[in-house]
Amino acid sequence: MMKRKLNELAEYVGGTLVGDGEVEISGVASMDEAQPGEITFIASPRYLRKLNETRASAVIVSKEVTAADKPLICAAHPHLAFVKILTLFFAKPYQPKGIDPNAWISSTAQLGKDLTIYPHVYIGDRCRIEDRVTLYPGVAVGEDSVIGEDSVLHPNVSVYSGSVIGKRVILHSGVVVGADGFGFVKDGKKNVKIPQVGKVIIEDDVEVGANSTIDRAALGETIIRRGVKIDNLVQVAHNVEIGEDSIIVAQVGIAGSTKIGKNVILAGQVGVVGHIEIGDNVQVGAQSGVGQNLPPDQAFSGSPAMPHREWLRTVMTFPKLPEMRRTLVDIEGRLKKIEEAISLKEKEK
Amino acid sequence: MMKRKLNELAEYVGGTLVGDGEVEISGVASMDEAQPGEITFIASPRYLRKLNETRASAVIVSKEVTAADKPLICAAHPHLAFVKILTLFFAKPYQPKGIDPNAWISSTAQLGKDLTIYPHVYIGDRCRIEDRVTLYPGVAVGEDSVIGEDSVLHPNVSVYSGSVIGKRVILHSGVVVGADGFGFVKDGKKNVKIPQVGKVIIEDDVEVGANSTIDRAALGETIIRRGVKIDNLVQVAHNVEIGEDSIIVAQVGIAGSTKIGKNVILAGQVGVVGHIEIGDNVQVGAQSGVGQNLPPDQAFSGSPAMPHREWLRTVMTFPKLPEMRRTLVDIEGRLKKIEEAISLKEKEK
Amino acid sequence: MMKRKLNELAEYVGGTLVGDGEVEISGVASMDEAQPGEITFIASPRYLRKLNETRASAVIVSKEVTAADKPLICAAHPHLAFVKILTLFFAKPYQPKGIDPNAWISSTAQLGKDLTIYPHVYIGDRCRIEDRVTLYPGVAVGEDSVIGEDSVLHPNVSVYSGSVIGKRVILHSGVVVGADGFGFVKDGKKNVKIPQVGKVIIEDDVEVGANSTIDRAALGETIIRRGVKIDNLVQVAHNVEIGEDSIIVAQVGIAGSTKIGKNVILAGQVGVVGHIEIGDNVQVGAQSGVGQNLPPDQAFSGSPAMPHREWLRTVMTFPKLPEMRRTLVDIEGRLKKIEEAISLKEKEK
Repeated sequence: MMKRKLNELAEYVGGTLVGDGEVEISGVASMDEAQPGEITFIASPRYLRKLNETRASAVIVSKEVTAADKPLICAAHPHLAFVKILTLFFAKPYQPKGIDPNAWISSTAQLGKDLTIYPHVYIGDRCRIEDRVTLYPGVAVGEDSVIGEDSVLHPNVSVYSGSVIGKRVILHSGVVVGADGFGFVKDGKKNVKIPQVGKVIIEDDVEVGANSTIDRAALGETIIRRGVKIDNLVQVAHNVEIGEDSIIVAQVGIAGSTKIGKNVILAGQVGVVGHIEIGDNVQVGAQSGVGQNLPPDQAFSGSPAMPHREWLRTVMTFPKLPEMRRTLVDIEGRLKKIEEAISLKEKEK
Repeated sequence: MMKRKLNELAEYVGGTLVGDGEVEISGVASMDEAQPGEITFIASPRYLRKLNETRASAVIVSKEVTAADKPLICAAHPHLAFVKILTLFFAKPYQPKGIDPNAWISSTAQLGKDLTIYPHVYIGDRCRIEDRVTLYPGVAVGEDSVIGEDSVLHPNVSVYSGSVIGKRVILHSGVVVGADGFGFVKDGKKNVKIPQVGKVIIEDDVEVGANSTIDRAALGETIIRRGVKIDNLVQVAHNVEIGEDSIIVAQVGIAGSTKIGKNVILAGQVGVVGHIEIGDNVQVGAQSGVGQNLPPDQAFSGSPAMPHREWLRTVMTFPKLPEMRRTLVDIEGRLKKIEEAISLKEKEK
Repeated sequence: MMKRKLNELAEYVGGTLVGDGEVEISGVASMDEAQPGEITFIASPRYLRKLNETRASAVIVSKEVTAADKPLICAAHPHLAFVKILTLFFAKPYQPKGIDPNAWISSTAQLGKDLTIYPHVYIGDRCRIEDRVTLYPGVAVGEDSVIGEDSVLHPNVSVYSGSVIGKRVILHSGVVVGADGFGFVKDGKKNVKIPQVGKVIIEDDVEVGANSTIDRAALGETIIRRGVKIDNLVQVAHNVEIGEDSIIVAQVGIAGSTKIGKNVILAGQVGVVGHIEIGDNVQVGAQSGVGQNLPPDQAFSGSPAMPHREWLRTVMTFPKLPEMRRTLVDIEGRLKKIEEAISLKEKEK
C-alpha cells in the first residue's frame, strides 16, 4: 500500500498539524487495532485519554487538542477527516473492464464510454447505459431503463423496465427496482390486480443495500431523492417518495404513497403505514410503528409511535405493570375498609 | 395510446352512462392528476364534491349519482370499474418472444408453445414449462418442477427442484420457491439438519412480491392456494398453508406448519408463530405478533395479538402509563394518611 | 426407494430394538401421515397413547418404553434418531456434474476436484473453489474469495470479493455475502460513505437461508462461527460476530459490531442494536428488541427486551390497562370523598 506523509494528509483533510509532519502513514485502523505506521481517530474529547494507549503513529482529534506525545491532525470533524483518509488509502481509481461477450445487450440499447459489463448481464431494448457504469454478473436491466454515469449495480440486481437511475448510484446484490406495487381490488372475494403502470426514479448519489425492494408506482412515480441511503432488506412500496439525504436502516418497511421528508432517519425494522407524511429531520427509533403524520424536527419511538422521550418513560413502566395491578387491588381493598369504617361511624352517630 | 368512447367503456364495465357517451377517452389517471381526455373515479360518495375540481373528461362514480356537469359512468363498485378500464388501456396482449439461445434448457425438459425464455435462464431436467410462460433473465428452475400456463417469472427468480407452480402465477424478481425449511435437531450442542424432502405447491392466480421466500416442506407440502397475493420480502416457512384469496403484506413472517384461512389479511411486518391456525376472513394489524390460534371473521392487533378494538383501547393508555404510576404513588400516600387519621381516632376513643 | 430392516436401523441410530427386527422399512413419515412400511417417531412420552393410532410399521420412542403392539426402536433422543434415519433414506450421495461450459471462470481461479458448476455461474479472479463444491446457476463469486470443500451455493447467490466461506456451508438462493456495511458520516447534511474495506468469514457447517444478507466489515471481519444456522431474510450487519451453533430465525436483524454468543437462539423478527454483546445460551423471543447487553444462560422477550417471565407477566396486563385506568379514576373520586368526609369531621370537632 502507498505511503503518505502526515503533513500531506493534514492538508488533504483541511486539518491542523500538531507535531512531526514527516511521519509516514501507510494505513488506517480503529483505535484498538491500529499498528505503528497507521493513523486512527478519536471522535469525542471524552476518549482523549486513549491517545497514549493506541499504537497508531498519528491520531486525528478535534480542534481543542493542541499538544500530545504523538503527532496529531486536529480537525473540526475528526470522524469525517478519518473517512476521507480511509477513502484516499482504499479507493481504487476506476478502470473500465469493457463489455464481456457473455453479456446479452439489446442492439437498440445506447451504451456510454468506458463501461464494465460482466458476463451474464442482460440489457433490454432501448436502455441507456451511461459512461463508466459497472454492471456485475447476473444484473438484468429491463427495457427503456436508464443507468446514470458511474453507477454500480452489484451481482443479481434486477431493474424492471422504464426505471430511471441517476449518477453515482450503488445498488447492492439482489436489489429489485421497479417490481409491481402491491395493489388489488376485491371483486367479490377475488383479488383483481391493479395494473402498476408507473415507474421508479432513483436520483444521484443514492445507495441501496442488498435485497432491498423499491416498487414501481401504480400511476406516476416512486421517487428516491438525491443522497438517500437505504440499508439491506428494506421495502419501499409504490408511489413512496423519500426526501434528500434520508437514511433508511435495515428491514424498514414503508407502505404505499407515503412521503418521507429530507434528512430523516428511520432506524431498523421500523414500519410506516401508507398515505402519510413524515417531516424533515425526523428520527424514528428501531422497531417503531408509524401510523400517522409526523411533524418535522422531532424524534419518535414505539408502536404506535409517540415522542421519543414520552416513549422512554412509557417503556420504563412496562416491567412495573404487574406490580401496579397488584397495588390497585390492594388499594381497592384498603379503600373499601376505610369506607366501611367511615360508614360505620356515620351509622354510630 | 388507443381511444375509446365513453359509452363503450360504460358497457365494458357494466355501468350506467350519464351524459354524453360520445366523449373520447384516451387515458386513465387519479382525481388530482387527470387531464382532459382522461377518465378517473370517485370511490366514496364523500368525495363527490370533487367532481367539479378534477380536469378529467369523465368520472366513474357510485350508483347513487344521477346527474353532474360532466359525463359519468355509474357503477356498483367504482374502483373495480376503474381498474378494469385501466387494465383495458395498459394491458399489452401477450406476444411470445421465443427461446433465446443463451438460455440453458435441459434436453429432458418438456416445453409448451409460445414461450418467452430470455437469455441466462436455466431449466433443469424433466421440468415442464407450459404454454405462454415467460421466464426473464436469470431465472433458474430446478429439476422436476412445473410452471403452469401464462405464468411470469421475473429476473433472478429461483425455483428449487420439484416445485409445482400453477397457471397465471406471477413471481417477482428475487423470489425463492422451495429452499430448505429451517429445521434442526440438537445433538448435544450441534445442530443436525433435518432433511427437507417435501415440496412447494403454488396454485393458480397467485402473485408473489420481490425477494419473498417460500420454503419447501420438511415432509409433505407447503401450499399457497389459488388467488393468494403476497407482497415483498415475506417469509413463508415449511409446511405452511395459505388459504384462497388471502393477502399477505410486505415483510410478514409465517413460521412452520401454520395454516392461514381463506380471505385473510395479514398487514405489514406481522409475525405468526408455527403450528397454529388463523381462521377465514381474519384481519391482523401491522406489526402484530400472533402466538395463538385466531378464530375466523375477526380483526386482531398487537404483539401479542388481541382483538383489534381491545388493542386500540390498550395502546391509547400507553402514553398515560407514567402518569398512572405517579398517581398510584400519590394515592398510596393519601391512603396512608387517611388510615393513620382513622386509626388515631380509633385510639382516641 | 431402498428398504432397510428395522434391526439395521436400530443399530444405525444406536437404539434398542423392541419386537420384530426383520420388519422392512421403506420410508419415513410423521405420525399422522405414515403408511404401512414406514417408520415414524414419538418425541414425548405424552403422546405414547398414539402408538396404536399410527399406521406406521415401526415407531422410534424414548428409552422408557419396553413393549408395544408394534416394533419399536427405543432411543435416548427419538427425534434425533428419526432425523438420522430420514437422512439415511433421502440423502443422495454426491455425484459431481462437472463444469458447464456456460459458466464463466477466471483463468486465475484455482479449482478443486469433482466440482459441480452449473451454467451462468461467475467465478472471479484468484478465487479458490475447493473439492466437491456445487455452484448452482446464477451464482456469482467475486475475486479473491474462497469456497470450502463440499459447500453448496444455490441459484443466484452473490458472494462479494474477498469472502472466505468454510467447508460444508450451504447458502440458499439469493443470499448476499459481503455487500458493503451501512456506514456513513455526515458532512453537513450530506452522507459521506465510509469505505467498507473489511470482509466476511463464514466458518464450517454454517447454513444461511434464502435472501439473507451478511455484510462485509468496515475494517476487520464479520464472522459467522462454525455450525451457526441462519434462516431466511435475516440481516447481519458489518463487524457482527455470531458464536458457534447459534440459531438465527427468519427476519432477524443484527446491527453493526454486535457480538452474539454461542448456542444462542434469536427467534423470528428479533432486532438487536449495534455494539452490544449477547451472552452464550441466551434465548430471545420473537419480535423482541434488544437494546442492551444480555447476560448468558437466560431467556428474554419484549421490546425493549426484559427477562422472559417478567415479559409474560407484563403482556398479560396489557389488555387490563384500560380497566386499570378507569379504576384509578374511580379510586381518586372515592379518595376525595373520604378526604372530604374526614376533613368535615375534623372541622366538626
